[in-house]
Amino acid sequence: MELPSKILQEAVDQLATLPGVGKRSALRYALHLLKEDELKVRDLSEALLRLKTDLHHCRHCHNVSDTEVCPICASEKRQRGIVCVVENVQDVMALENTQQYRGLYHVLGGVISPIDGIGVHDLEIDSLLHRVQSGDPAPVEEVILALPTTMEGDTTNYYLSRQLRPLGVKITTLARGVAVGDSLEYADEITLGRSIAHRIPFEG
Amino acid sequence: MELPSKILQEAVDQLATLPGVGKRSALRYALHLLKEDELKVRDLSEALLRLKTDLHHCRHCHNVSDTEVCPICASEKRQRGIVCVVENVQDVMALENTQQYRGLYHVLGGVISPIDGIGVHDLEIDSLLHRVQSGDPAPVEEVILALPTTMEGDTTNYYLSRQLRPLGVKITTLARGVAVGDSLEYADEITLGRSIAHRIPFEG
Repeated sequence: MELPSKILQEAVDQLATLPGVGKRSALRYALHLLKEDELKVRDLSEALLRLKTDLHHCRHCHNVSDTEVCPICASEKRQRGIVCVVENVQDVMALENTQQYRGLYHVLGGVISPIDGIGVHDLEIDSLLHRVQSGDPAPVEEVILALPTTMEGDTTNYYLSRQLRPLGVKITTLARGVAVGDSLEYADEITLGRSIAHRIPFEG
Repeated sequence: MELPSKILQEAVDQLATLPGVGKRSALRYALHLLKEDELKVRDLSEALLRLKTDLHHCRHCHNVSDTEVCPICASEKRQRGIVCVVENVQDVMALENTQQYRGLYHVLGGVISPIDGIGVHDLEIDSLLHRVQSGDPAPVEEVILALPTTMEGDTTNYYLSRQLRPLGVKITTLARGVAVGDSLEYADEITLGRSIAHRIPFEG
């Protein structure tokens, strides 16, 4: 579709770089903004830019934060001896939403993936090891590996466990199994296999 | 979902004002931008703002344009005596994409809708009448009413025809009927009725 304006075209092209946004949606967004007040569009424009200029990553866990140390790392109410290692910021939010976890986090920023050119030093692995070695911000008793169950996630788990074991820290990982409410019939074999292998005492 | 940062929250809230974008998509967009270079985010941010600061509306047809008079109104190759009245900018693009129409346009910017508080003076109706009366930028022989077939569209069509008829201009409207490739069986009665009432000579 040819647009009647280069300025509109540029806005559409830029919006279409967002994940899952095609040219048609981008055009819809741009035409919507065209109708909005200049002040509102300015607010949006500035809010997006501030993501890069004003947002920090926590010095300890590398989660996004408005402050140098994020509220979770700064909280004395959390179990500061437990560190949950996750791939990204979304995973922290997902775990926080469960309201079941009271420890700290460590956001790697990805997983080891040679195909995508992501190596050990592109991730926050050194800072994790340093955190365990130095006991800063808190002595670490347990590291929970909560990375995705993909080949890259497993590789990263394996690498981390090799590096962490000599440091004398307890290493655990998430329980995997058939989801609550799912029927066994439709679960894949690997998931169902893990559910049966890691069965737990029944509390009736 | 509670976000770990006010700056992130603000960006998500702003993105969620785009049509059809929920909080979840907005978060996905924001986190994507977080990973991008600052320069890229700045490009997006500025492209959106330019929509309000730099984009013009054509002085004659009110289509979006980078210049005071849009390329269509400025073109000597178009049939300058025919003006197609449409609701919005998207309609111009849709008609241009057919490559069947060689006349000019007039973008009303909406249709008369008392429920939404949109009256005659909120639309580019006066400028259309002035255009027909003054013959600027070109004398108008025919006005094609291409507004939507809704109650509001019909109301606007009726109002326009009442205003235009005394000016001695030919008034036409789009042919409506069963879409090319559609079977009669599934067409609604009104559409099929129009197809039969407005049947045309067969050119075999």
